Amino acid sequence: MAIRKVAVIGLGLIGSSIARAVAERLPEVAVTGHDASDDVRGVARALGLCDTIVDDPAAAVADADLVILAVPVGRMADAAAAIAPGLKAGAIISDVGSSKAGVADALAKALPDHIVIPAHPVAGTENSGPAAGFATLFDRRWCIVTPGAGASGEAVTAVTSFWQALGAKVDVMDAAHHDMVLAVTSHLPHLIAYTIVGTASELEEVTESEVIKYSAGGFRDFTRIAASDPVMWRDVFLANKDAVLATLQRFNEDLTALQQAIRRGDGAKLEDWFTRTRAIRRSIIEQGQDDAAPDFGRKH
Amino acid sequence: MAIRKVAVIGLGLIGSSIARAVAERLPEVAVTGHDASDDVRGVARALGLCDTIVDDPAAAVADADLVILAVPVGRMADAAAAIAPGLKAGAIISDVGSSKAGVADALAKALPDHIVIPAHPVAGTENSGPAAGFATLFDRRWCIVTPGAGASGEAVTAVTSFWQALGAKVDVMDAAHHDMVLAVTSHLPHLIAYTIVGTASELEEVTESEVIKYSAGGFRDFTRIAASDPVMWRDVFLANKDAVLATLQRFNEDLTALQQAIRRGDGAKLEDWFTRTRAIRRSIIEQGQDDAAPDFGRKH
Repeated sequence: MAIRKVAVIGLGLIGSSIARAVAERLPEVAVTGHDASDDVRGVARALGLCDTIVDDPAAAVADADLVILAVPVGRMADAAAAIAPGLKAGAIISDVGSSKAGVADALAKALPDHIVIPAHPVAGTENSGPAAGFATLFDRRWCIVTPGAGASGEAVTAVTSFWQALGAKVDVMDAAHHDMVLAVTSHLPHLIAYTIVGTASELEEVTESEVIKYSAGGFRDFTRIAASDPVMWRDVFLANKDAVLATLQRFNEDLTALQQAIRRGDGAKLEDWFTRTRAIRRSIIEQGQDDAAPDFGRKH
Repeated sequence: MAIRKVAVIGLGLIGSSIARAVAERLPEVAVTGHDASDDVRGVARALGLCDTIVDDPAAAVADADLVILAVPVGRMADAAAAIAPGLKAGAIISDVGSSKAGVADALAKALPDHIVIPAHPVAGTENSGPAAGFATLFDRRWCIVTPGAGASGEAVTAVTSFWQALGAKVDVMDAAHHDMVLAVTSHLPHLIAYTIVGTASELEEVTESEVIKYSAGGFRDFTRIAASDPVMWRDVFLANKDAVLATLQRFNEDLTALQQAIRRGDGAKLEDWFTRTRAIRRSIIEQGQDDAAPDFGRKH
């Protein structure tokens, strides 16, 4: 299944990064782009993203061998319905959504006669929109492919090869396990960051101006994630509700235990916990999933 | 009150950064260093930190105009007692502790006949030890000075000028307010980060290897803070217990509210919350307290 033409539906951070990465890494592949927003299409044209930007979603996917839906997970069903009339027989439809079981169901329902291979590149920044993308976003990051039970092996291989060509490492797993893993490594961290940034900005005893001034004490780290796209993240939490609530319960248990250790003055328990967590970061750096430079390599 | 000689007691990340910064920015000032650990003194000597490294703490502060205690807050009282016999009359004793009311009490008690001006440079990285320090650590960061009620204005000015010479901006506030502000901007973020990294590494459903592989989804941001020095942070939570528990309660209320919004499928509440938090990061960047580059400027 050779991929000669790709259609990217949704030209935000991820969609525009795919378009740029294909242009750089797979110059022989044609890329057509579409976004539901007139403004975004205008910016994408001005930036020279994709070979063609098409106003009509069904027209955008004409002749595409691979269609990637890069829209918030709550909009996947609508986006799939909008492209359906234009899909050629044998086209592979994939996506980049951060939750997979719900998206897989929505796409299967909207496109019953097509090949659907859901995927999730675990990469991003806090910025949004077509100007935020860049070609190297997926380098050394993992892309998780979650084919359904009856998926064609050839189609899975085609999607896998495509992401590898963009610089990603690929894992294949089932959608439910993906959703549990990402609840831990992505969704819960975002929920916690959104919470603490909101909490800090609404205290009576400490002004917002003080929070901003002294944010280098640790708080500023959380504000990056809490600056992520609100609509995208609203949809993720609604789509992956069960796994998020399950991991949140575990977090709450641990937080209560540490709260109790602080209240009781149990320094040994705190020190033991803080020593264990230090080792995790070393492994992340060793495996190339974060920068070894102190402070994320921030300039000092 | 001219400062011609500084003694730095404790040569970890902060103490060694002070020594380096003085050498670079105040070359006319002599610096004597001491650390309770033989190993740390050995490394400090090998690195050429300070003009002299002295084995005995009381001898290290001889003739010093300014003594800075850069030890975990739980060790401040002992460190003060150890230097007391060597202090010259009129020496200013300061520190760098992340909590201030308890430290101020401990120092006043240990050094009743001396000038104590507590301070807290809000700066650091996740690394520890004498090799982790660097001269520019305090550039454009805030240093909060918390003089007691009867403190000499001249001594406050001397400490303020010292930190400004190292590149910091200085604010003066009372110790109790400092402790509430830092509970929000530093201590609670550290507690939350330590908690979530511990939670993620002990789930049954998701392996530690999976957590590490897919950490770029957000989790890795928390691991930096959760790699901070365990003993230093144990002491901070024990010393600033009341303010930490008070802000933690506010965080828990907000987390429960967002948890409920997810359970009920209240997308409007989530989107509204996530939109508000985005603005805080913009202010932090505008005020020079974080890097404007996406993803903290990590390489992609």
